[in-house]
Amino acid sequence: AGPFDPSNDPHRRFNPLLGEWVLVSPHRAKRPWQGQSEEPNNEQKPQYDPTCYLCPGNTRVNGEVNPQYTGTFVFENDFAALKKDTVAASDKKGLFQFETEQGCSRVICFSPDHSKTLPELTDEERLDVVECWKAQTQELGQHYQWVQVFENKGAMMGCSNPHPHGQVWAQQHLPTDPAKKEVQLSAYFAEHGRALLADYAQQEIAKQKRVVCQNDDWVVVVPYWAAWPFETLLLPRFDVCALHELSKEQSLTLAQIIGDITARYDNLFETSFPYSMGWHSAPFNSKAHPEWTLHAHFFPPLLRSASVRKFMVGYEMMAEAQRDLTPEQAAERLKALSSKHYKKREI
Amino acid sequence: AGPFDPSNDPHRRFNPLLGEWVLVSPHRAKRPWQGQSEEPNNEQKPQYDPTCYLCPGNTRVNGEVNPQYTGTFVFENDFAALKKDTVAASDKKGLFQFETEQGCSRVICFSPDHSKTLPELTDEERLDVVECWKAQTQELGQHYQWVQVFENKGAMMGCSNPHPHGQVWAQQHLPTDPAKKEVQLSAYFAEHGRALLADYAQQEIAKQKRVVCQNDDWVVVVPYWAAWPFETLLLPRFDVCALHELSKEQSLTLAQIIGDITARYDNLFETSFPYSMGWHSAPFNSKAHPEWTLHAHFFPPLLRSASVRKFMVGYEMMAEAQRDLTPEQAAERLKALSSKHYKKREI
Ligand SMILES: O=P(O)(O)O[C@H]1O[C@H](CO)[C@@H](O)[C@H](O)[C@H]1O
Ligand SMILES: O=P(O)(O)O[C@H]1O[C@H](CO)[C@@H](O)[C@H](O)[C@H]1O
Repeated sequence: AGPFDPSNDPHRRFNPLLGEWVLVSPHRAKRPWQGQSEEPNNEQKPQYDPTCYLCPGNTRVNGEVNPQYTGTFVFENDFAALKKDTVAASDKKGLFQFETEQGCSRVICFSPDHSKTLPELTDEERLDVVECWKAQTQELGQHYQWVQVFENKGAMMGCSNPHPHGQVWAQQHLPTDPAKKEVQLSAYFAEHGRALLADYAQQEIAKQKRVVCQNDDWVVVVPYWAAWPFETLLLPRFDVCALHELSKEQSLTLAQIIGDITARYDNLFETSFPYSMGWHSAPFNSKAHPEWTLHAHFFPPLLRSASVRKFMVGYEMMAEAQRDLTPEQAAERLKALSSKHYKKREI
Repeated sequence: AGPFDPSNDPHRRFNPLLGEWVLVSPHRAKRPWQGQSEEPNNEQKPQYDPTCYLCPGNTRVNGEVNPQYTGTFVFENDFAALKKDTVAASDKKGLFQFETEQGCSRVICFSPDHSKTLPELTDEERLDVVECWKAQTQELGQHYQWVQVFENKGAMMGCSNPHPHGQVWAQQHLPTDPAKKEVQLSAYFAEHGRALLADYAQQEIAKQKRVVCQNDDWVVVVPYWAAWPFETLLLPRFDVCALHELSKEQSLTLAQIIGDITARYDNLFETSFPYSMGWHSAPFNSKAHPEWTLHAHFFPPLLRSASVRKFMVGYEMMAEAQRDLTPEQAAERLKALSSKHYKKREI
């Protein structure tokens, strides 16, 4: 049988953030694909779209008119999943347990320019976005225990409007995945006296097997336990546990590395690369969080091309996440790409 | 503010099988949808398709020829995610933990008829499918700790061939979700001396708020903690912990209730309703499993129509599952539908 070959033999890897395993079946990438193909998103959009409810000066569904904003623009979601005034009620016994939730949900427009996504903005414009995320995190963290900053990019990821935007949802209780992380990170800190993700970043930088790009302050890796084909994890190279604690300098280097990784994503299949991304700052409660390191996840669905995605379905929904290429193979491909966006290349 | 109204106010519900919460935001169903729409699957297929690699007598990618099968037909997946002869290796320390996995993965054709899905087969033909699931579970349970029987139905669920078929993947280790269930069900059994899902079935039958359909042996509910819009849970009304332990009688009533729920699904939007479904028998190991009740999940993605699905994306991937209508509303709609398939109705 020969020795174990991680780039060919089925194996499971452990995600220490969630305490869950992922099945890696690298040889499966060889199978032919006859299933659904997606509509790639390569259409050139106008800078202003009169029918877009996010463009400056346009009217939204509820009748409100957007200002003539020039940088970022934040408003309360017209169909918010969370509301601040929900009455308190709960039942935590037996098989029908519930608790009401208080919170809020906002939309964050990244730019007035309808045609540009994060990788197509300048570092200065992306810095604006980072500053906006910081301000939202700071403000909402004063009222709620959890502040979830995220972006759904692309129709494939349930995004209903191509205007560059993300969201922030904040809520009273710690949601399921952050609660798992809090348990895992605390256990590691109790054992080692150090933050798990700080140790992890250091070890990945030393190994250079899964690093896609890095600068003085940040590093992007395909994590050892990645579930999505080209999933990445964005980590700071300094101690920080929440977005709003970043200095101006660190915010700028962050804007730069976000430009880098999102341009590589677009370059991979020369398409506007769909993904969901989100930030995990430490929970906002009375405790200090030395166990926690600020980090962002990118979860992109594409697998083989601009039109063939990975489906997390039957086995994955019933048993555990499964991937068809190794994280090392994914990192190698992303690393080999230019960080200059394909649309900006000279022809 | 008035009292808590579960059909309008945001709240979280607890999934006692996984130990995880789900956010319910019922008022969000009112928002207009301008995002991606799916291709509904309403095309009439031929009974035999010469280009289908699952039809009887046809040649598969690897050159093998399918027999002229007349009932169900099982073969080893030509691009298996799991292999039986993977070498043993593992590292369970530090941040780069892995273990190799041994197993197998097979395809189960439900019928030689290319044009028919589960709800369109007769009870006798569906009984054939149930008997095949039982035989696979029995055989593979002798070699592996976990036997995952499942079906991905529809292109939207990553199914690459419309010929009616499912799969069975078996493996040495307990996968992530079954391992969570084992912990949760054991804790409940330790406390109450009864199986959680047996208690749950009984309470749902008494309440009749989330029951979609039932017969003497089985009941289908939209679980109190459902994440997908029209998710259902199929439960036995007698003690049984694994598929192959079903009697002939219980297998027939199972074939009937599967016909009932899948016909209701197709009738909901008058389309071949996509879903992933799968069976959870107790783990196959040296222990007895009085805590475990055999059950099946149906996870269907559609939300509003044959072409508008629910996206489990940004917030859901980063924080926790979120739904836009209550399980009670979903159950009411499914319950009100005929159990006779719309294609079989007289015109
Ligand atoms: O095995 P299939 O049908 O080719 O593939 C489908 O089911 C598998 C098991 O859920 C998934 O891993 C694949 O992503 C999906 O496309
Ligand atoms: O809020 P949006 O962009 O309308 O909706 C999108 O993101 C939400 C948060 O991840 C999801 O719940 C929705 O399913 C998705 O379509």
